[in-house]
Amino acid sequence: MRGVVLHAPGDVRVEDREDPVLMHPTDAIIRPSAVCVCGSDLWPYRGIEEVSGPTPMGHEYVGVVDEVGSAVNTIRPGQFVVGSFFASDGTCEICRSGYQPSCAQRVAMGAIGTQAERVRIPLADGTLVATPEHPPADLVPGLLAASDVLGTGWFGAVAAEAGPGKTVAVVGDGAVGLLAVLAARRLGAERVIAMSRHPSRQELAREFGATDVVEERGDDGVARIAELTGGLGAHSVVEAVGTQESMMQAIRSTRPGGHVGYVGVAHDVALPGHELFFSHVHLHGGPAPVRRYLPRLVDLVWRREIDPGKVFDLTLPLEQAAAGYQAMDRRSAVKTLLTP
Amino acid sequence: MRGVVLHAPGDVRVEDREDPVLMHPTDAIIRPSAVCVCGSDLWPYRGIEEVSGPTPMGHEYVGVVDEVGSAVNTIRPGQFVVGSFFASDGTCEICRSGYQPSCAQRVAMGAIGTQAERVRIPLADGTLVATPEHPPADLVPGLLAASDVLGTGWFGAVAAEAGPGKTVAVVGDGAVGLLAVLAARRLGAERVIAMSRHPSRQELAREFGATDVVEERGDDGVARIAELTGGLGAHSVVEAVGTQESMMQAIRSTRPGGHVGYVGVAHDVALPGHELFFSHVHLHGGPAPVRRYLPRLVDLVWRREIDPGKVFDLTLPLEQAAAGYQAMDRRSAVKTLLTP
Repeated sequence: MRGVVLHAPGDVRVEDREDPVLMHPTDAIIRPSAVCVCGSDLWPYRGIEEVSGPTPMGHEYVGVVDEVGSAVNTIRPGQFVVGSFFASDGTCEICRSGYQPSCAQRVAMGAIGTQAERVRIPLADGTLVATPEHPPADLVPGLLAASDVLGTGWFGAVAAEAGPGKTVAVVGDGAVGLLAVLAARRLGAERVIAMSRHPSRQELAREFGATDVVEERGDDGVARIAELTGGLGAHSVVEAVGTQESMMQAIRSTRPGGHVGYVGVAHDVALPGHELFFSHVHLHGGPAPVRRYLPRLVDLVWRREIDPGKVFDLTLPLEQAAAGYQAMDRRSAVKTLLTP
Repeated sequence: MRGVVLHAPGDVRVEDREDPVLMHPTDAIIRPSAVCVCGSDLWPYRGIEEVSGPTPMGHEYVGVVDEVGSAVNTIRPGQFVVGSFFASDGTCEICRSGYQPSCAQRVAMGAIGTQAERVRIPLADGTLVATPEHPPADLVPGLLAASDVLGTGWFGAVAAEAGPGKTVAVVGDGAVGLLAVLAARRLGAERVIAMSRHPSRQELAREFGATDVVEERGDDGVARIAELTGGLGAHSVVEAVGTQESMMQAIRSTRPGGHVGYVGVAHDVALPGHELFFSHVHLHGGPAPVRRYLPRLVDLVWRREIDPGKVFDLTLPLEQAAAGYQAMDRRSAVKTLLTP
């Protein structure tokens, strides 16, 4: 089968990979209908994360179940399914508490590489959510978004305790940040401030429910948020970048007692304890437990109440994956959808 | 009047200080019945915080109101009062949300120095809580504890979301850590693990409700907590020290999705973003909003439901403050009470 492999920073190839087989009785094999390129795929693509030899890429996926192992009970061949970027058993104490990416049996789908024609999904019963029936084509992008960026933005907004009466600021205008705007509004936030200096992303943020846009960054961005919130800072801030600057911008934009939800994978971040202490903020984040939200998110997409698929502004056949990575790297695309 | 002044690390003196006067119409002047030495007073005493010239010391206090300014409405001369270590107006949006130490008008009582015969209390109406009548002598230590260490331990336990069904670990066996044990139990925690290697402190921890004691520290302490919690970590961990080691011990002792409440004033702490991200913990803390809890805590002490005054194991006249600092520095006393 064909699949995407990163050989070195900037060197994405589509090549023949070995066909996956059922390795455990709890596995399923799916044929992805659509996969995509994640902001976090850009870290190794840009050489910020080390690339040690050829690496299969991708961790987002929707598709049709091809085969299931003997211990798979709820997922059946032929179903259309959405899964998260961590496979998880769904039964342990950590899964039941809603932190599936920390499941003791977790498997990072990024280590398997979903940008391919067929994909092995470990722990299929715990990981996959089936749609009521096969979706019409126009719903596929939205369902694919639920697999990571929507679920991650949603977790960011939940972790930031976005809700009625709250002012929420979002740091980062990638797909996750934009969908955190959508999530904050769906969760009832009164005011949602998107921090973006990119006109087309600002437009999408407004479409997703942003009430304000702040173009300034860093200290200037913090000052603008203060100005917009009577000097106090936002109640809730979602951080969706993962750098030292963006984390500090998020913390400093939050009022005392407010909540920072951080979902950008932290790279070279060190939080100054003294400042954090006196900031009085709540901090929560990490790899989003997308599986916790998937039934609700799939339902919202299915009933066309939300259209998170709008973050895909470039669709290419899998064979042209390299061009899809390049477009995201250059920020000419927000998010690339690939059709195997 | 006489008051405690720190001249240099290790050099605590009791000397004549200028008598306080009402500076603002919202001020009160009190005559402390009892004051005390705080773990955080040891930072400058040990030279870890810089001492720039003679510094009046102390921020904990209970006593009798002497005078009030013209704009003070609820506090009256003659009342016995308990206050927090931050004066706060009690009316701004941040105070009303329960984060009084971040009140825009806040005044750090440590900058005034309460280890003295008379003390000016800014924003008296917002800051002070009067007891129903003058307390019997044996309740004074408990009320004094409410002024900081009890309120701080309580906040730590609340920030860590201690509650029914939860396993709570407490890092730090100073007065705040010990009272966090008491708070966690009062808040309904099922199991409270005190981390201490000091026999008399272990005993007090058990008296305050600890169900387990762990003597190991650092990585060994983390491993013991894992052992005691089925490999998952505690639901809630209170950090009551403020060092890099204790913060990491707290974070690593918490299960994914669990809560760290940190109340040790952070010194030279830098939290590694990547580890924090994948830890999946909630982090909240800072200077405790003691004022939020004071009415409840004063009531619990008044009705003799709790006896937090037990943390005072050394009582000295104010004139012997230097010996009180020394005893805490050498850990021969948990906490020193001074009578002006």
